[in-house]
Amino acid sequence: MDHNEFRYRRVEKQITTLIESAAIKPGDRLPSLRKLSGQLGVSISTVSQAYLELEKKGVIASRERSGFFLSPSAGRMPAPASRPRPALVPTSSSRSGLIQKVLEALGNRDLLPFGVVCPADELLPAKTLARLFSNSLRNDPARALNYAPVAGEDDLRRQLALRALEAGISVTPEEILITSGAMEGLAIALRALTKPGDNVLIQSPSYFCFLQLLENCGLRAIEIPSSGDGIDPRDVRRAIERFEIRAAILVPNFNNPDGSLTADTRKEEIVRLLGERGIPLVEDDVYGEIYFGAERSRCCKSFDDAGEVIYCSSFSKTIAPGYRVGWMIPGRHYGKALDLKTTTNICTASPNQMAIAAFLREGYFERHMRRLRGAIHNQMKALLLSLHRHFPAETRAGFPSGGAAIWVELPPDIDAVDYFFKAREAGIGLAPGPIFSTQDKYNNFIRLSCNGIWNEKMEQGVKTLGRLAEEMY
Amino acid sequence: MDHNEFRYRRVEKQITTLIESAAIKPGDRLPSLRKLSGQLGVSISTVSQAYLELEKKGVIASRERSGFFLSPSAGRMPAPASRPRPALVPTSSSRSGLIQKVLEALGNRDLLPFGVVCPADELLPAKTLARLFSNSLRNDPARALNYAPVAGEDDLRRQLALRALEAGISVTPEEILITSGAMEGLAIALRALTKPGDNVLIQSPSYFCFLQLLENCGLRAIEIPSSGDGIDPRDVRRAIERFEIRAAILVPNFNNPDGSLTADTRKEEIVRLLGERGIPLVEDDVYGEIYFGAERSRCCKSFDDAGEVIYCSSFSKTIAPGYRVGWMIPGRHYGKALDLKTTTNICTASPNQMAIAAFLREGYFERHMRRLRGAIHNQMKALLLSLHRHFPAETRAGFPSGGAAIWVELPPDIDAVDYFFKAREAGIGLAPGPIFSTQDKYNNFIRLSCNGIWNEKMEQGVKTLGRLAEEMY
Repeated sequence: MDHNEFRYRRVEKQITTLIESAAIKPGDRLPSLRKLSGQLGVSISTVSQAYLELEKKGVIASRERSGFFLSPSAGRMPAPASRPRPALVPTSSSRSGLIQKVLEALGNRDLLPFGVVCPADELLPAKTLARLFSNSLRNDPARALNYAPVAGEDDLRRQLALRALEAGISVTPEEILITSGAMEGLAIALRALTKPGDNVLIQSPSYFCFLQLLENCGLRAIEIPSSGDGIDPRDVRRAIERFEIRAAILVPNFNNPDGSLTADTRKEEIVRLLGERGIPLVEDDVYGEIYFGAERSRCCKSFDDAGEVIYCSSFSKTIAPGYRVGWMIPGRHYGKALDLKTTTNICTASPNQMAIAAFLREGYFERHMRRLRGAIHNQMKALLLSLHRHFPAETRAGFPSGGAAIWVELPPDIDAVDYFFKAREAGIGLAPGPIFSTQDKYNNFIRLSCNGIWNEKMEQGVKTLGRLAEEMY
Repeated sequence: MDHNEFRYRRVEKQITTLIESAAIKPGDRLPSLRKLSGQLGVSISTVSQAYLELEKKGVIASRERSGFFLSPSAGRMPAPASRPRPALVPTSSSRSGLIQKVLEALGNRDLLPFGVVCPADELLPAKTLARLFSNSLRNDPARALNYAPVAGEDDLRRQLALRALEAGISVTPEEILITSGAMEGLAIALRALTKPGDNVLIQSPSYFCFLQLLENCGLRAIEIPSSGDGIDPRDVRRAIERFEIRAAILVPNFNNPDGSLTADTRKEEIVRLLGERGIPLVEDDVYGEIYFGAERSRCCKSFDDAGEVIYCSSFSKTIAPGYRVGWMIPGRHYGKALDLKTTTNICTASPNQMAIAAFLREGYFERHMRRLRGAIHNQMKALLLSLHRHFPAETRAGFPSGGAAIWVELPPDIDAVDYFFKAREAGIGLAPGPIFSTQDKYNNFIRLSCNGIWNEKMEQGVKTLGRLAEEMY
C-alpha cells in the first residue's frame, strides 16, 4: 500500500466511523471536499478519492452540483427481532455429525474466513512470539524439553495471576491451573462437577463445542435465552427453581455466537442466585479481552466468595490459537481439576507455556491487544455496512460491543444449514445457526466471524452471500 | 572428561558387559592386564585404571600375585520370586492422594532421577529439535500459530504411518489421530469405549496413571498378572470367561513398572481371545522403541484385522516429554475418538507437531534412538550391579529387555511407601510399589527408572538407598 493509498483509506475509515456512530444518517449530505480536507488535514484529492471509493461500494451517492449523500440503505441494521426463545426443558444434544462437518470447513484455509473465530494471520504477533519461543528453547533447553508441572509453569501462573486483576479477580499463582486451551478447562470443569444424566444450564445460543461436550459427557442442557443484553438473572432463577441443575456454563463477556455482554450487576446477581443453591458456575471468558469500549468488563469469578465459580480462558482468540495454552481458576474444585488434568494429558506443553509467559512478562500483550481490538472493531463495522448493502432488507444483525463474531438473522425462509453448504461451495466459510442449540432452533441464523482484516475479497464474499440469500429467499 | 578418562571408562564398561552377559562368573579370574590390553588395543595403564575403578566399586577384587577376580557377589540378581498374584476381582482404585504426592516428587528436579521415567537431559536431542522448532515458527508462521486440524498435522500423520510399519502396523495417515501425549490417547480411548461402572482388564502391576484414569472414569479394574514373560493369554481367558469386561488396557512391550515383554505369539493369541468376545484392546506402546535386542517387537495392533485394537504411543519417552505430542490409531473407533479429541482440547499444539514431523522426516529419529537405547541399556546394567553391591541380599530385580525402569522387590518387611518418603528426604526420587495396583499389593516393591546416564552421584544414591533398606529391614 503506497503512502497515498494509505491516506485515503484512513479517510474512508473515518467516514465509515461517522456513519456507524449514526452522526451521519441515511440521506444526509456529507461534508464538502474542501471542508473535510481542512478538518482532517489532508488534500482535497485524498478526500475525493475516499468519497469515490465509498460511492463505488454503494455507501454514498453523488448528486450533480450537490455533493455526496449517504445512501438511504447505509448505516446500522436493526438487531434480530424475532429471537426464538428456547423451551425450558432438558435436552440432549446430538449434532456431532453436522458439527464435525462445520469444523472441517472452519479449518479449511481456502475458504473465506467468516467461519473460524480467531484473528487473521497478519494480526497475530508471529515474529515476537517466534523469537521468544526460540529463546526459550535455546536458553533453557532442559525445561523446554521436559514435562512441566501438572499445574503448569510457575512463571506463566505468576503472569496470569497479575493479569487476572484486570478482570477483577484476585488470586495467587497457586490457584491457577494451566490447560491446553480453554476447551480443556471447560471439559475438566464439567467432568469434575457432573455425572452422566445431570442437567447443565447454558445460554441459548451457545458455542457448539459446549453442546458437543455435554453430549460426550452424557449431560442434558437447560437453555436460557441470551439476548442483546446477555443473560437475564430472572431466567436463571426460573430455571433453577424448576430443575435440579448440577452446574452452569456461561459466557457473560461476548457470548459466542451472539456477542452479547451480560452487565456486571447482572453477573453479580447470577453468582448470588447460583451460589444460594450451591450450583457451581463454569465461566468461559475467552472473549473478555476483546472489548471495544473503554475498559474490560469484570468476570463472574470476581463476585465469587465461595470458590464455586470455575473461570476458564485461553490465548486462542488473542495471540496464538495453535499454541494451545489456556488456564483455569477452579476455586474450591482445584484438587479434583488437578487430578483430571493429570489423566487428560499429564501437563500442557512446556515451551509453549514459556513463550507465552515471556510475551506477558515483557509487556507485549497489552500493546498487541490494543491493536487487535481496534482491528476487529473496524472490521465488524465494515462487515455490518457490507451486509446492509448486499443482504435482503429483512436481514437482522446486532452490533456487539466486543467479541469477534456477528450473529445474523436471515429472512425466515432461508435454511441456514443449506446456506452453509452453498456458501462452502462458493468458497466462503460461516457457521450455521442450528449447531448453536440442542433444540430445533436458529434455523435461519448464521454466525459470521471477524478476524480483524477487511478487504475487497471479503466485500465480494459478502456480495456472494447476499446473492445466495436473495436466491434462497 | 579427558581422553584418557574416556578410554578407561570404556574399558570399564566393556568388562561390565562381559559380567552382565555372564561370560565371566562370580569368582572367575579376569584376563591379565597384558592380555586385555592386547585384545582391546589400549595401554596396560588404561586397563589397570579400569580394574582399579571396578575394584573400588566392589565389583572385582585383587589377590596378590594372582590378578583380579570377579567378586562372588557381582553379577545378575535373581528376578523377583514372590510376585504377588493379583486377586481376580473387580476393584476400584482410590490412590489419587498418594499418587499426587508421588507425581510431585517425580517432577522435582532436585531429586536423584530414579523416579521419573524419561531420558536424561543430556540424551534428549535439544539442539536439533530447537533448530527444527525455530525453523517451523519462522518459515511457516501462519501454520504454526493457527489451530491444527483436529486429527493433527498431515505431515506428522504421514511420518507416523511410515514409522508404524516398523511395529508391524500398516495404516494410512488418515487412520492416525494426533494426541497431546499417549495419556491423552488412552483417556480418549477409555471414554470412547466405556461408561462408569464398567470393568476394564489391566496388567498387575500397571502404570499408576492408568489406575487414576480408571478412577476418574468411574471404572473398575480386573487385574491379571504381569510376570517376567509379560501377559499370559490363559490369564486373559480366565478373566474374560469370569467377568463382563468392556475393554482392556495392556502394555505388551515393556510394561511400566515391571519392564515385562509379552512375546509376539502371545500378543496374537490375546488379540484373538479378546476379539472373539468383541472386547476392544487399548494398547500402550510408549516403550516399544526402547528395546535392547536386535529388533523392535511387534504390536497387538499388527494382529488386529477387526479394527478393535486402539494403539496409543508418544514421543515422551524418546525425544521430548514436554512437547506433548503423541498419537493413536483408533481403528473402527476413529469417529468417536475424533469427536472426543475435539472436546478434550480442539487439537494438539501446531508448532510442536511441525517440529517433530521435521525430526522424523529428516531422519534424526533412528540415529537418536540407537544412541538412547544403548545408553539406557548400559545404565540399567550399571544400576543392577550397583543394587547388587549395596542392597540386602534378599533383594530381587529382573533385567528387562527394554523399557526404562527396573522393578525391585525389597525384603518383605520393608514398607515401600515409608521407603519412598525416606528416600525423598535423602534427596532421591523413586516410585513405591503400592501405587501400581488397585489392590493392597506390591507393598515391598519399588520402581527405579533409568534415564540413560550413570554417574558417581547415582552410585552414591543407590548406596544410600541400600543403607535405608538395611535400616528398615
